[in-house]
Amino acid sequence: MNGTVVKNIHRADASAIAALEKLGVATVHEAQGRSGLMLPYMRPVWRGARAAGSAVTALCHPGDNWMIHVACEVLKPGDVLVVACSSDNADGAFGDLLATSLKARGAKGLILDMGCRDVGPITEMAFPVWSKAISARGTVKGTVGYVNLPVVCAGITVKPGDIVVADDDGVVMVPRLDAAKVAKAGEEREKKEAVNRARLQKGELSLDIYDMRKGLAEKGLKYVDGPLE
Amino acid sequence: MNGTVVKNIHRADASAIAALEKLGVATVHEAQGRSGLMLPYMRPVWRGARAAGSAVTALCHPGDNWMIHVACEVLKPGDVLVVACSSDNADGAFGDLLATSLKARGAKGLILDMGCRDVGPITEMAFPVWSKAISARGTVKGTVGYVNLPVVCAGITVKPGDIVVADDDGVVMVPRLDAAKVAKAGEEREKKEAVNRARLQKGELSLDIYDMRKGLAEKGLKYVDGPLE
Amino acid sequence: MNGTVVKNIHRADASAIAALEKLGVATVHEAQGRSGLMLPYMRPVWRGARAAGSAVTALCHPGDNWMIHVACEVLKPGDVLVVACSSDNADGAFGDLLATSLKARGAKGLILDMGCRDVGPITEMAFPVWSKAISARGTVKGTVGYVNLPVVCAGITVKPGDIVVADDDGVVMVPRLDAAKVAKAGEEREKKEAVNRARLQKGELSLDIYDMRKGLAEKGLKYVDGPLE
Amino acid sequence: MNGTVVKNIHRADASAIAALEKLGVATVHEAQGRSGLMLPYMRPVWRGARAAGSAVTALCHPGDNWMIHVACEVLKPGDVLVVACSSDNADGAFGDLLATSLKARGAKGLILDMGCRDVGPITEMAFPVWSKAISARGTVKGTVGYVNLPVVCAGITVKPGDIVVADDDGVVMVPRLDAAKVAKAGEEREKKEAVNRARLQKGELSLDIYDMRKGLAEKGLKYVDGPLE
Amino acid sequence: MNGTVVKNIHRADASAIAALEKLGVATVHEAQGRSGLMLPYMRPVWRGARAAGSAVTALCHPGDNWMIHVACEVLKPGDVLVVACSSDNADGAFGDLLATSLKARGAKGLILDMGCRDVGPITEMAFPVWSKAISARGTVKGTVGYVNLPVVCAGITVKPGDIVVADDDGVVMVPRLDAAKVAKAGEEREKKEAVNRARLQKGELSLDIYDMRKGLAEKGLKYVDGPLE
Amino acid sequence: MNGTVVKNIHRADASAIAALEKLGVATVHEAQGRSGLMLPYMRPVWRGARAAGSAVTALCHPGDNWMIHVACEVLKPGDVLVVACSSDNADGAFGDLLATSLKARGAKGLILDMGCRDVGPITEMAFPVWSKAISARGTVKGTVGYVNLPVVCAGITVKPGDIVVADDDGVVMVPRLDAAKVAKAGEEREKKEAVNRARLQKGELSLDIYDMRKGLAEKGLKYVDGPLE
Repeated sequence: MNGTVVKNIHRADASAIAALEKLGVATVHEAQGRSGLMLPYMRPVWRGARAAGSAVTALCHPGDNWMIHVACEVLKPGDVLVVACSSDNADGAFGDLLATSLKARGAKGLILDMGCRDVGPITEMAFPVWSKAISARGTVKGTVGYVNLPVVCAGITVKPGDIVVADDDGVVMVPRLDAAKVAKAGEEREKKEAVNRARLQKGELSLDIYDMRKGLAEKGLKYVDGPLE
Repeated sequence: MNGTVVKNIHRADASAIAALEKLGVATVHEAQGRSGLMLPYMRPVWRGARAAGSAVTALCHPGDNWMIHVACEVLKPGDVLVVACSSDNADGAFGDLLATSLKARGAKGLILDMGCRDVGPITEMAFPVWSKAISARGTVKGTVGYVNLPVVCAGITVKPGDIVVADDDGVVMVPRLDAAKVAKAGEEREKKEAVNRARLQKGELSLDIYDMRKGLAEKGLKYVDGPLE
Repeated sequence: MNGTVVKNIHRADASAIAALEKLGVATVHEAQGRSGLMLPYMRPVWRGARAAGSAVTALCHPGDNWMIHVACEVLKPGDVLVVACSSDNADGAFGDLLATSLKARGAKGLILDMGCRDVGPITEMAFPVWSKAISARGTVKGTVGYVNLPVVCAGITVKPGDIVVADDDGVVMVPRLDAAKVAKAGEEREKKEAVNRARLQKGELSLDIYDMRKGLAEKGLKYVDGPLE
Repeated sequence: MNGTVVKNIHRADASAIAALEKLGVATVHEAQGRSGLMLPYMRPVWRGARAAGSAVTALCHPGDNWMIHVACEVLKPGDVLVVACSSDNADGAFGDLLATSLKARGAKGLILDMGCRDVGPITEMAFPVWSKAISARGTVKGTVGYVNLPVVCAGITVKPGDIVVADDDGVVMVPRLDAAKVAKAGEEREKKEAVNRARLQKGELSLDIYDMRKGLAEKGLKYVDGPLE
Repeated sequence: MNGTVVKNIHRADASAIAALEKLGVATVHEAQGRSGLMLPYMRPVWRGARAAGSAVTALCHPGDNWMIHVACEVLKPGDVLVVACSSDNADGAFGDLLATSLKARGAKGLILDMGCRDVGPITEMAFPVWSKAISARGTVKGTVGYVNLPVVCAGITVKPGDIVVADDDGVVMVPRLDAAKVAKAGEEREKKEAVNRARLQKGELSLDIYDMRKGLAEKGLKYVDGPLE
Repeated sequence: MNGTVVKNIHRADASAIAALEKLGVATVHEAQGRSGLMLPYMRPVWRGARAAGSAVTALCHPGDNWMIHVACEVLKPGDVLVVACSSDNADGAFGDLLATSLKARGAKGLILDMGCRDVGPITEMAFPVWSKAISARGTVKGTVGYVNLPVVCAGITVKPGDIVVADDDGVVMVPRLDAAKVAKAGEEREKKEAVNRARLQKGELSLDIYDMRKGLAEKGLKYVDGPLE
């Protein structure tokens, strides 16, 4: 598939994206049945970053960031750029100039399965980046990959137009057509959690709130008084 | 030992715990003969966190956080919860609801040999957590482990009631019965260090303050003028 | 070479050092042909740290920090101490007392291929440290290494007097005699980047600014309209 | 998708599979444009193992091997079982009993993104297994995943019926419908390589055989006589 | 505890040890409730090695193998030496001379949470070693640890006299007083497995042999015909 | 330095090389004061491989093996090719065709700080390779590095003409001009070890042979009778 750029993609509904961004990564991951979560090495370059949007996908090769430049053109305001790499590589494929470009063109953020550099300036400009590493190592523009075909990024298959949600907990992918359903499930989960949070704050036990004692006993859990020594 | 919860444990003396918390991890580790330090992958979820307390211990299984819920009940104000895992696993076994519960019940902090999620909210509520990873990956409640029996957490054996001290440098365990002795040794070490710090601030060399020149010469250290090239 | 301390070294020109520090790691790395960059595991102990200076080099052995003490004596104001280790080791070879000493003697910073401890106090005193790990593990003073002979630190050969530049992106080494040349090349690069940054901010594409379209076509890049599904 | 087992899948053409197995991983990977190769941590449990077949896919959860048992039923002679895991986990999900079962039912091999145990007996029975780790850690049967839906295994998306080829070099996936085309391209590549191998054996240089000198000169490669020191 | 050598220890019953060795690591681990298994980085230096015995324990420090020499004296024929390290270190603490010594004194094998060297000669003399790494890095004799006090080795607490069983699958520890009980449970497990193995060899499914279908249905597993695409 | 090929280098004395090869890695490493040993991730592709020779050095870039082709021309019979990479990369830069070429031209072996593929055929042809990884991932020929200038390979600076010795224990570098001296020191070490080996085989303790008891007592080692529990 190397050598192909798909110019147009379907995008997800903006209100669903907004709802998912508000819910955050952990809730969205749970709301869609504990799927779609990228591996935990994908970390924000600066704490507090938060982003969600339709994925424009790109595949780069090790030590080469050419396809990020290509992807900038097909990206639309509100999108999140998701960059995979054909092998395990932490070179600094993205820096403040590309961040300037992505920001100017309306990108909401970047998910990068390679290294990021210029993290000082990128933090100052508050452009949200999640990456595998921080590295100033320069990259070449020599080998073509592809744009807007499916990629595997940090262990998760991302198709163009799928929604990506990212915050301090990491990054989760929601299939495009599931957006509204997942957002709704997440909001319901939040409501339940709000009730439970209030009970926990008063000192109630999750053992009682979630009614776990019977299940534990069935699995053979036994209490002894102690202390044992 | 799976399937056992010990309800009551011996706890360490509160004033010794307070003294150890004030001393911090590096000093406590040195004061007890350079032992008890967990492996350095055990890192605070937010910088500046600091905690010390008697350990309530729990063993979980990979992808399963059931025993954390069980441990909440037997924990008392001032305790630190220490959670080990039967295999190497970074799933997000702990989040803001459990943090709310632990805080409400008076726990001083959590040491977690698995992953932590909801790190944004946990940072806001300033609940101290040290973990092996940050991950939003959800966990099940399916397999029983145990509570308040000895565990190995990040390379260190922790028995219920041992003291755990944690700060930005990591986590150290002090055997319960050694608490007062270690606290005293740590305070003496701090006094000496204060004197040495003042001398170093004036520009004196540690070579002289610690009288190292003779030992170095005996080991064969030679000085040449240089530059060599 | 164990057992040798070279007291005097050539140092780089102060104005070149100042210029390199201002340029920062990524620009310096690019300006000297993408060489000299340490492996990305070498990270600042606190965000925002920045340092540049002539390297005083030391080789320690695993679990032993004796040569750091020795190096303090031969170091001069403005130098950066670069500490390598003869094997892969993350023990806490450096803490607040040594930081106090280095600061008092005018060191600009420390690059440490071992672990750092007392990171709270070191952050407070704003002494710049880049290290492989954070660990409170204590070290002994038992085996002699050397000072001011070449070392390999995080994958890069550093000779005494070479310049080391470090910031949030990592650490880069510039050979002493290349300092002025690299500084000049970096400043020219910055000027070009300033122009390009302004164009990117207006929404121009890097594809056009860097004239990449022809090269991409020659490599066979094809555009299709999409969406594909 | 957890909770679903797809009983029937399309399978690839047997002669194409046989051709791909003969070609081996490196040639197949090259023949399909350098795609489909799993990450290099996926290693054979014993040297010399070799397998190819249509993929029956399964998703397990950390510390849980239930879906491997489920997959045994839908697998047909000649298939290769590909097992992914919803998080990073090395527990011993597969041992000699399951190997006995897979062998009895005609499976050609197993690709396992978890740990393998009983490696002595499995080597003796010559059942081909590639895994992420060797570990005797036992697993539970508590959480359902799925069978014969797409998975990501060692960085590669595998759909049911895709072909998996594995040998001492690792594991590569070929999309089902590309099998014949890739086999043909691989055979042509082998013919060319045979010619080149003969020339290289006579001492000819790859620089000349592949006509690289002009390209190198254009990139600026310069020869100097030396020795330099 | 540094600085202490305990000369005499309780040892486990020889027939129980022999039984456990015959059962092997995976069966022993299961037979004692899936506990005691060392982390999977602990690997045999040569394939086919097999050992079991009472543990003589030693704690070394990074880059230092002094306590292995000390342990040789207190070790008795049939023992297995278990060497832990106070920090994460892969230096070559053990080579062919120490292997010669251990073999001459009747040791059954070595479990080493550091590096091993001279692996060619050690393989030739067929002395069983499990280690964290292979490394020729030399070590010093400068810092005292201890012998025959509890250690944590590859994530498992080992007390002097506990039984250690090791084979191609890794290493498992059995508490001394549990030896006979675990051996018996393991033998029963083996008998059951032999029956099941015979049924699996005939092509019966584990789903039926272990009666899993009902449990799977209760967890919601659904079968669909397929193929889906 | 990218873009430079040095055609001629000084080579070490053949008899010194032969002596070093016979001594092996561990002895050579010790004989030159425990220096020059590459990091332990550098492992032989097949067990039993053994090589020594003057180093021809090359620097490649991630995902690119062009300079290996260039190096083949300047290499002479008896040399060992040492390939470094400008960043951390495990792609399969070397396979059976290049092995055929190196063998035909008389190379003694390859040390590769990248990945190796075709390990089956390379093992059959018994060409000695040490590499960082096994990976079939294909590489491009797009970016020039250099040949016969100093490189850092697996943590060690190697200059053209330095001697490289490799066996099952790993890889060690001996500076060219030190070859004879190190060979002599190694042979003396071997003689002493032969004497000690004979004594150890008879059951004598290393504590006595190396006269360690006094030193241990001075460091405070104490013996207690035990058993303690």
